[in-house]
This record gives sequence, structure tokens and C-alpha cells, in this order.
Amino acid sequence: MQPALDYAAQNAAAFRQQLFDLIRIPSVSTLPERAGAVREAAQWLADNMRRAGIENVAVMPTAGHPVVYGDWLHAPDAPTVLIYGHYDVQPAEKADGWDGDPFQPVERDGKVYGRGATDDKGQMFAHIKAVESILQTVGALPVNVKFVIEGEEEIGSPNLPPFLAEHKDKLGADVCVISDGSILSEAQPSIVYALRGLTALEIEVHGPATDLHSGMYGGAVHNPVQALAEIIAGLHDADGRVTVPGFYDDVLALSAEERAELSKTDISEADWIAQNGAPAAWGEPEFSIRERVGARPTLEVNGMAGGFYGAGVKTVLPARALAKITCRLVADQNPQKIFDLIKRHIEQTAPPTVRVEVRGLKGSGHPALVDINAPSMRAAITAYERGFGAPPVFMREGGSIPIVADFQQTLGVPVVLMGFGLNTDSPHGPNEHFHLSMFRKGIDTAIHFLDAIKTTE
Amino acid sequence: MQPALDYAAQNAAAFRQQLFDLIRIPSVSTLPERAGAVREAAQWLADNMRRAGIENVAVMPTAGHPVVYGDWLHAPDAPTVLIYGHYDVQPAEKADGWDGDPFQPVERDGKVYGRGATDDKGQMFAHIKAVESILQTVGALPVNVKFVIEGEEEIGSPNLPPFLAEHKDKLGADVCVISDGSILSEAQPSIVYALRGLTALEIEVHGPATDLHSGMYGGAVHNPVQALAEIIAGLHDADGRVTVPGFYDDVLALSAEERAELSKTDISEADWIAQNGAPAAWGEPEFSIRERVGARPTLEVNGMAGGFYGAGVKTVLPARALAKITCRLVADQNPQKIFDLIKRHIEQTAPPTVRVEVRGLKGSGHPALVDINAPSMRAAITAYERGFGAPPVFMREGGSIPIVADFQQTLGVPVVLMGFGLNTDSPHGPNEHFHLSMFRKGIDTAIHFLDAIKTTE
Repeated sequence: MQPALDYAAQNAAAFRQQLFDLIRIPSVSTLPERAGAVREAAQWLADNMRRAGIENVAVMPTAGHPVVYGDWLHAPDAPTVLIYGHYDVQPAEKADGWDGDPFQPVERDGKVYGRGATDDKGQMFAHIKAVESILQTVGALPVNVKFVIEGEEEIGSPNLPPFLAEHKDKLGADVCVISDGSILSEAQPSIVYALRGLTALEIEVHGPATDLHSGMYGGAVHNPVQALAEIIAGLHDADGRVTVPGFYDDVLALSAEERAELSKTDISEADWIAQNGAPAAWGEPEFSIRERVGARPTLEVNGMAGGFYGAGVKTVLPARALAKITCRLVADQNPQKIFDLIKRHIEQTAPPTVRVEVRGLKGSGHPALVDINAPSMRAAITAYERGFGAPPVFMREGGSIPIVADFQQTLGVPVVLMGFGLNTDSPHGPNEHFHLSMFRKGIDTAIHFLDAIKTTE
Repeated sequence: MQPALDYAAQNAAAFRQQLFDLIRIPSVSTLPERAGAVREAAQWLADNMRRAGIENVAVMPTAGHPVVYGDWLHAPDAPTVLIYGHYDVQPAEKADGWDGDPFQPVERDGKVYGRGATDDKGQMFAHIKAVESILQTVGALPVNVKFVIEGEEEIGSPNLPPFLAEHKDKLGADVCVISDGSILSEAQPSIVYALRGLTALEIEVHGPATDLHSGMYGGAVHNPVQALAEIIAGLHDADGRVTVPGFYDDVLALSAEERAELSKTDISEADWIAQNGAPAAWGEPEFSIRERVGARPTLEVNGMAGGFYGAGVKTVLPARALAKITCRLVADQNPQKIFDLIKRHIEQTAPPTVRVEVRGLKGSGHPALVDINAPSMRAAITAYERGFGAPPVFMREGGSIPIVADFQQTLGVPVVLMGFGLNTDSPHGPNEHFHLSMFRKGIDTAIHFLDAIKTTE
């Protein structure tokens, strides 16, 4: 791969200039008035991919913004890598706190500033430049490659799952790589191998027909806010474990090896509370903080309201109360099954003195977990070692990236989250930026990954 | 007292006409633009009292609307009766649903319609006409009488407690009688002998410094809404008893005699839930519904809020949560002591994973309980028997009338609640009215009360 690496080094200025050109297109997917710019970015990308030597490039329609597809499929005995990214960006206005126009990229202190620099134009573009570097020097890729670059990631990828389902055969692959995140530091790469899923619901408790006078009725009518508090309180035990029967049944246990890996990035209680301001840490005592957030499911009350909560006093016995709950799920929990378990448990244990409704809400997603011993992971380790000069640590993330589960569920493909950004890059914020050194190392790492996957898969 | 009763009967038309004149003055205490009408009502009342033969009549200033005072103190060996009432009224507009101008009283079907007809102009005026009837015929009252007619009852009597404290010596009495409520029916008089007091507080739970991402933090930070639900849920046991240590220490037990009296007006669970719409009754199983509401203290969550409770899903771990609570208290509970007990209990049992604040709110009031065997109660029984033709039943009311406790606390005077209204009179609502037959019986009952109290005190 040395010729490809040399090509990337020699063309660094040109690659940087192309990235500037892409950032200059304000492809804000959520703004109807930017629909033209979104399409322009897709076309720009398709043209750039064609020039790179990628074949069958097409701007493919969806019910929303298009997907840019391209492939190179001339390695019949080698595995196929699906590279996912997105060319759309978050909204940005100078008034939000930017030092300059968010869509006029500038370089300062080795960083390119501009909306989309790290999320995801710079990271996604590193893969295209990696493929170009190999094709323009070696002449052939060591593996087959397919690109799926979408234009709706920042609005929740509403049309990606149907797109994947519709083109399931065309998109078949052995591994999916996504560069749309961050690593611990430029000196310490890291790979997120687990993401939590989500199930969302709300509980509504109805008591009397209307708000009642607390003097005339209080003491002989079950207060719905109190009843809901009793239900909520009963959903955890004193150690922070969820009490819903069956809730943990499908949770994969952590192996000793995995716990050892996770402990490398553990955080002390002092650092944890310094970060979030709570008086103390909380949760299942037999798990570390990182494990509680990354490897354990939760049942979180996102909010609750009922009755009067303004200034002063209102002596009311409220008619109803509402709580909104989301559960973060880990492999192999199923969002629908967890919802059903919670609904049944609450309905079975609710007191007869109130009427309780448990309703599912949109927004569920499957958890994702990639085997850290899979061949694609070994390839990623090798790639980071060569591209960044250090082996990555493996991490679990508490949040959810639904598309990861979409790729796993719809295409049956394991996902490697190969971030090239830093969490200080201000994605979604003002003065978003991307380190040009990370862009360079990202291209090299992507080259090494395609090489390494050939031998490990 | 027969000459007085005859006088009242002969002058019924004149008394009715005077009541119409009083209702015609729109003495709405809460509206600044009605301040002149409030003063006019006070002057009208003072003039009417002087003509009735009441002495030392004065419109006495307060920091707000004046109090109309008057007395007759020529029965040196007899007890002194303090008669309280109010000449101010609730706001009323024809547009609220009145059939006519609320301040142009009309008679229909034996009822006078107009704002203040029952609350409290009609009921209060019955006492003045009773005193007039005796003074204009017998020439002397059987007991000493003092009138305190205030002009701020409908705005919470803010200046009555300081007025009572300032004129404590002048207002000394053996019993206070208030006619500002309702009886069960015209055929079945009733006396409320207990009112609940109130203590108000709010609980605020603080967790992290700001709302957190439930994916990045959920599982290792105690959720303040959940923590508050746990606190709230812990304040009652499964039978609806308050768990705060000491909460019931000062509650006077019900005697068998009292329970038998209360059972006369008990309500079935079916009627109770038909009235309020709850799926079932609730509360301390060893007490009847009337006892739970009238004779037992409560801890009521008036409302609670925290986090996100709008439509859809927001995966947030909230920074704080608030609950507002009022306790209805019964004799001999003390509002400040109960607040202190709750605050200490919550602070002592709150988990160290959150920070909890318990704050007192304005609006506390002492419970009131009058001995149903007191001489003044025996006089009231006699008065109702003679005025309405039936002995009254004794009832406890779950609500609070702070002035009752004010009279008991500040002046050390037991209060007899001698209602002449019906709860169908629509006080505070449109088409407020007062039955002229109740006005007539009220005057007779007030005459009999002054006569009876002489021999029973």
C-alpha cells in the first residue's frame, strides 16, 4: 500500500482543497430552502467519486434527499466493505457564535473550520480519498467496496431503512464501516463496539373526573400524582436495578476480557460527578460507571407532570398525571419485548383506585453490539495501529445510533465504527472543525483498513 | 321571644326590601374600581345597624377595606356573643351566565337572585334583623352582642387577624357565631363543628447541574424525577396512612359518640365515586369516607413536574423536579410542627445521590374543632329546633375556613357555624340566590339562639 500512502501524502493540498469545496455547499438537510444545496452536494460528491475511479456512481432517489452510491467490485475472492457516511449537515448561522461564515471554510492552527468539517464531510471524504489513492496507484483495491452516502442523517435518516430494504441485494457486504464519530485522542484511537437501543413509552394515571378540592375530597380519593409516583418508584430497587420481571433476561453478560478492556477507559466517581454536577454517582453497584452507561440497560423518567406546579399554593387533588419514559437497551434486548414487559408489569401492579394507561411512543431502536474478536475488528486494530501509531481501545457508548442497528438488522452486516474526529470538534455546535492531521491519518487508516480486511476476513 | 318573632314576621317585606338594597351595592372586594362600592356597603350597613338599635356602630379602618363594628352590652351577667359576617362579595358579570344583572336583585320562586344573596349578605343580615326584632319589641337583648362584619372575606381576610389582635380586648366574647355556609336541607339543619387546617410546602430535588443526555449518563446518575417519585411514594403506606413519624401524634381520636353522629351523614362508596369519578374510594380502611375527609389529616400532592412532558420523545435525564404538597390538618395538629416533621423526615431519608430542599409556603392555617357538647352548641341545637323544626346533625368539613381558627386562636372564642344557606345556592357562581324562607327561618333561629345561649352558657 506504500504507493497509495505516498499518493495521499503528495495530494494532501488537493484533498484539503476539495474538502473546502464540499464544505462550501450548505447542504442543511432540515431546511427546505437548502434542498437545492443538498442536491448540489450529492452531485459534487458523485462527480468526485467518479474522478477517484469509483464505478457505477449514481445519485439514487429516496422519498427525501438522495443517496450517493458507488462501488468497485473487481476482487471476486475478497470480502466486500460497505462504507457509510452522510453529506448533509446541521444548520449553522454566524449568529450562533461562529467566528466566521460557517460555509466559508478557513484553516487555523491546523484545523479546518466550517459546518460539516468533522460531521461528516471530512470523515466520510477520507474514505473516498483512500480509495482514490489506491486506485490511482496500485490500480485495484484489495477488496470490493460499496459506498452509501446519505443526505438525511441530521434529520434522523427517515428514508435510509426503506432504502436499505429496497436495495438489500445490491448492498450486500461482509462488513460496514462508518466514520462519523470521535476517538479518545489523536494519540489514542478508540473503537465503539456497542451502542444502546431505545424503547419509549408514557404512563398516564387517571383518578377523579376533574381536579378536586383537596379539602372536600382529600383522604378518600387516591391522588393520581401520588399513584404515579408510587408506580415510578416501584420500577427500581434500592440499588438502581429495574424491577420489571424479565427486563434483564436477554442482556448479554460481560466477559472478563470485555470488562478488562472497558476498565482501561473507566472514570472515577470524582471525575464523573465533576462532569455532570450530581452529588454522587448512582446505579447498579456491581458495575463500573462505564459499564452502567455502556453495558447495562436503563429505565429513565424523562419527565413527569400533573396538577399544579406554579408559584404559590393551589389546594387541588389532580385528576391525572403523566410520566414519559425511555429505556436504553443493550444487546440482545428487543425494544418491543421490553415495552410489552413494562406495560404488562405496570398494568398488573397498578392499584384499582386509579386507571392507568401505558402507551408506546415512536423512536424505538435496536441495540448494537459488534464482536470485538471479529475479523473486521482485527482489521480495524491493524489499520489504527498503522494510521495513528497506536492500537485502539474498545469502548461501549451509552447513546444510540439507530442506523448501526439498521445495517445490522436489514443487511445482516457487522458495523465497525471507525471515528476520525475528536469530541472537542464541536459537531452540531458553532466553530465546528476537523484537524487536518486527523484527515490525513484518517485517509491512511482507511487505506490500511481495506488492506487489512483482505487478510483477516 | 314571641314579640320579636312576631315583629320579624310582620316586617318580612321590609327586611326583604332592605336585603335587596344591600345586594344592589356591588361591593366586590377584589376589584380596585369597586372600592367606593365596598365603602358604600359598609356605610349602608352601619346606618342600618344604628336604626336597628345596635350601639357604638363604627366603620373601623384596616389596611384594606373597613370592618363594621357595633354592639349592645347591657346584660352584665349574661354571656357575650360575637357575630361575624362579611359584606363584600365575589365578582359577577352577566356574561358569566347570569340570567340578569347580578347587582339588580330579583325574586323568583321564593328566592332572591343576586351576587351576595347567600354569601354572605343574606345570612349575615339575618342576625342584624334578629337583634332589631328583639330590641324593637322586648327592648333589651337576653345577652350581650358584638358585631364584626368585614369587607375582605372574599380576598382571604388579609387584615382580619391583625384587626382581631389589635382590638382583642374590645372584641372579647364567650362565643362567636358565623352564618356563612350551608345546611343539609331546609328540613334537616346541620352544624359543622370541625374544619381542617392546612400546611403547605414544596419539595425540590436537584440532581445533575443541567439536563443530561440519557444515553451518555443514564444508569449512573440518579434521576431527580425518579428520586422525587421515590420520596413521594414513601410518604404513604399501602393503606393510605402518612408515614412521617409523629404525623398523627396530636390527632384527637374520635369518640364512639362522635362516630355515631358522623355516621348519620355517611356516604356509600358507590355514591362517593359517582360524585367524583374515581374508579374506587381510597384511604385509611378503618375510617369511613366522611371520617377520612373530616376527621383525618392528609398529605396531598397538589402537583409535580420535572423534565420533559410534552408530545413525542426527549431522551433527557432531568436536572430537577418539584412537587407541591398541602396537608389538611385536624385538631390538635399544629401547622408549623407538621411542616417541621415532614421537612426533617424527608431530609433524613433523602438519598445522598440527589440534593433535596423542603420549603414552607404561605397559606397555613390551624384546624378548628368545637366541642359538640359545649353550651353554645346546645344553644344552637335549640335554636335550629325552634327555627327550622328539626334538630341539626353534626358534621365535620374537610375544607378550611382560616377565620374560624383565627377567632379561636386570637380571641380564644369557640365558634358556632350556623349556616342558613344551601349548597345549591351557587355562592361564587352565576345566579347566586338565597331562599327567602331560609332568610325568614334564619332570623327566627338567630333570635332563638340569643335566647338559648343565655341559659346554656
